[in-house]
Amino acid sequence: MKFLASIDVMPIKEILDPQGKAVLLGLKNLDIQGFSDCRIGKHINMEIEAADKATAESIVEDACKKLLANLIMEEYTFELTAI
Amino acid sequence: MKFLASIDVMPIKEILDPQGKAVLLGLKNLDIQGFSDCRIGKHINMEIEAADKATAESIVEDACKKLLANLIMEEYTFELTAI
Repeated sequence: MKFLASIDVMPIKEILDPQGKAVLLGLKNLDIQGFSDCRIGKHINMEIEAADKATAESIVEDACKKLLANLIMEEYTFELTAI
Repeated sequence: MKFLASIDVMPIKEILDPQGKAVLLGLKNLDIQGFSDCRIGKHINMEIEAADKATAESIVEDACKKLLANLIMEEYTFELTAI
């Protein structure tokens, strides 16, 4: 079976997010009001071939833990959709 | 009303994604099999104060077009959730 893994890797809440601060400043300079608390991370889309959804989930967990997320500073969430 | 804007900014399909290629190679080196077609972009979470959902949507569209996405090479999608 083929699945689309849609993964978000975000800085953990305790970590300062300078990119987020820069975006908020940029939006203010463009006179786009109303935004607060901006957090920026990675969005990763990957296709995965696996026997079933549970197997695909464990492979994506493995990939996130070993490569895609730095677990000291980042947390990850993902969704799997059959394609 | 307060909303959480969850924005994904991804490279358009026609554009080569060297980051994605590097991740696929890294996963292979870690002997994590089954992945293909990796695309990497930005995931942005922001809070937005607006009168109603339609107003919040138009403000987020404006922010994406003017700052968050480079429309020549990137496309964006977003979801708004009331908080």
